[in-house]
Amino acid sequence: MKAILIIADGLGGRPTDYNGKTCLEAANTPNLDRLAAIGINGLLDPIKPGVRPGSDTAHLSIFGYDPEKVYTGRGVFEALGIGMEVKDGDICFRANLATVDNNLKVIDRRAGRINEGLKEIEEAINSIEIKDVKIIYRSSVEHRGALILRGENLSHNITDADPHKVGLKVEKVKALTDDESARRTAEIVNEFIQRSHQILKNLPVNKRRERERKPPANIVLLRGGSIKPKIKSLREIYGIEGSAIAGGALYLGIAKAIGLKTIKPEGATGRKDSDLISKVKAALEELDKGKDFVFIHFKGADSCAHDHDAKSKIEFIEKIDQALGYLLENVDLDDVHIAFTGDHSTPIEFGDHTADPVPIIIAGRNVTPDDVKRFSERSAMKGGLGRISGRVIPILFGYCDWLEKFGA
Amino acid sequence: MKAILIIADGLGGRPTDYNGKTCLEAANTPNLDRLAAIGINGLLDPIKPGVRPGSDTAHLSIFGYDPEKVYTGRGVFEALGIGMEVKDGDICFRANLATVDNNLKVIDRRAGRINEGLKEIEEAINSIEIKDVKIIYRSSVEHRGALILRGENLSHNITDADPHKVGLKVEKVKALTDDESARRTAEIVNEFIQRSHQILKNLPVNKRRERERKPPANIVLLRGGSIKPKIKSLREIYGIEGSAIAGGALYLGIAKAIGLKTIKPEGATGRKDSDLISKVKAALEELDKGKDFVFIHFKGADSCAHDHDAKSKIEFIEKIDQALGYLLENVDLDDVHIAFTGDHSTPIEFGDHTADPVPIIIAGRNVTPDDVKRFSERSAMKGGLGRISGRVIPILFGYCDWLEKFGA
Repeated sequence: MKAILIIADGLGGRPTDYNGKTCLEAANTPNLDRLAAIGINGLLDPIKPGVRPGSDTAHLSIFGYDPEKVYTGRGVFEALGIGMEVKDGDICFRANLATVDNNLKVIDRRAGRINEGLKEIEEAINSIEIKDVKIIYRSSVEHRGALILRGENLSHNITDADPHKVGLKVEKVKALTDDESARRTAEIVNEFIQRSHQILKNLPVNKRRERERKPPANIVLLRGGSIKPKIKSLREIYGIEGSAIAGGALYLGIAKAIGLKTIKPEGATGRKDSDLISKVKAALEELDKGKDFVFIHFKGADSCAHDHDAKSKIEFIEKIDQALGYLLENVDLDDVHIAFTGDHSTPIEFGDHTADPVPIIIAGRNVTPDDVKRFSERSAMKGGLGRISGRVIPILFGYCDWLEKFGA
Repeated sequence: MKAILIIADGLGGRPTDYNGKTCLEAANTPNLDRLAAIGINGLLDPIKPGVRPGSDTAHLSIFGYDPEKVYTGRGVFEALGIGMEVKDGDICFRANLATVDNNLKVIDRRAGRINEGLKEIEEAINSIEIKDVKIIYRSSVEHRGALILRGENLSHNITDADPHKVGLKVEKVKALTDDESARRTAEIVNEFIQRSHQILKNLPVNKRRERERKPPANIVLLRGGSIKPKIKSLREIYGIEGSAIAGGALYLGIAKAIGLKTIKPEGATGRKDSDLISKVKAALEELDKGKDFVFIHFKGADSCAHDHDAKSKIEFIEKIDQALGYLLENVDLDDVHIAFTGDHSTPIEFGDHTADPVPIIIAGRNVTPDDVKRFSERSAMKGGLGRISGRVIPILFGYCDWLEKFGA
């Protein structure tokens, strides 16, 4: 028995999306409809009804973990996702290269999506030393990166330095808890931000960008301070081996945190131009090579919705449908159970995550199917799965007969 | 965006109510049916399946709080609801004026619904002093009132003095926990009850009532000892301003505890003769004046069911339907999200709250509607909301895009 979990990021929508239909309803999705017809359908509250999920907390919850208990922040997943080693006690941050003026007012939160001199910038940041704390920065794509503080007596209970808005000054980081380690970490981060500005503004790449009237990457903005969550791997819980196929660092990072092998296939960009069939091929290869489980993440629909772009979201959903068509042609449903869902809704008008539930299908030989023939927010209301809160992996693995008995 | 939550107290019923139908099924409810048709429907377990709710715990749960964590008893809501100021450390009680004989056996738990001399009685009770503890009694309607013990080292962990039945002696209050403050509070309450009898039996109003062969209000029965619950206001959680429109003190008190402005409009009696349209008008005024949210409470259906009176309950549901009709005529559903439900079921035969779930509708522009065209316990079973446990406010506010994201 094998299992595949596919998450289409930001899949769900509202009737305000497109002429009274959700994007999913407006899209032509013959393969999703086929999967809905042979499977059992329902509505998934990624965390629980009335909770508006982040992508990280939603994935943890769908994977069977309780984010209210295990979530410490986003930074650790970003760090893991770009291949950094995270140790117990490390404080991890999402780190953006940004442009500030001399008063540390943010001019460009992405330093013009800088795509040059990233190695030089990385070295400069890693040369900073503060007290006995090691600073480890790694650049991922363009302005994005992650940063780890490694040392004794550090805490992730501090505020963000990133003001999250252009035109505001970089925030002075404060301790969120009344203890020495939080205060010490806040001080170190504040000093780091200052020092990053001093060292970066004079780098040759930035001097050159200024001459070319491009925004220099003259500061590092930190947010999402967090520690390695205390969670068991899927291997420890279910005794299975799995892989994750994704483009975005965050998703690869969460996958790593639950012990999956991570693969970012050729052409998987995490954007709407991403090659989804190459992801499905990579997933099938992993199963062929003996893995029990693969998780495939498709990012694009969410990005289109954040841009309030219904047509692109509909197109991307159709692209996902084609990738699913390829999967269904190449998979033996007598041997594989498939779950397909979203990690949350991102309606077009609102342009950000909402608490609306998302449709879900689970199909395979051990699934008792319902009458639903179409995959959408509305048809899922009539599905046999009912309305469930997170825990898709435990439910999927249940159909695969991989669960330990609780009790005797 | 605006939001309205309407709770029809004791709305739900059973097929034993009226010729094989629930009262809601037997009632003619064109406006509720219209709201059901444009909205999403489901069944609400006010707390969770298999829990038989009180009105207070049900409201807390529907409002998004976990009553198992925050509920301390009913008294504090009664006190808040009749306009008393409650401080941290105060022990609050629901206080009934009652009639006892010389052996403190209860003859009338409501002192003949006394409606005279209430000011005189209030002053007499407030003159009682026990140790260093201040006694603050306020009369509300007829025999009803609330009482606060204010002082150091008090506890709400004591039993009720009110025997809850005619013919029984007033209970000697006992400590429920093995600590000094509970024992001390039990002693003080026992002394207070004795003293209330001594002082009240000789009041002119009671002497007069005795001469007129009316039951004198010659004792105060205390129950529901509780402290101010540690809960965040809706303002703190969601950043919104809201008002509550209700007749009953309990509901006004719960609304106050979650930071709502409270309004008891002209004609709102909390009884079945209550003017429901005046409540709806008050709610619309609050929204007009800039409030984001209003909660409207209709009490009557519950009272009719407690009286085992199916016809009155059906009539009251039809009266609610007319008030809803007025609301729907005067509200822009492109701007307002409405949730309509009950706080629990009160079937006619049983005549008290049961654990049966109650139907719920949520409607508004961001809601993906289902196929349900009728509002009833049975039609709600086919609704797209499925079966939910409490948390109606977070779900409603989610549709209004008022939730903070959990995670990133």
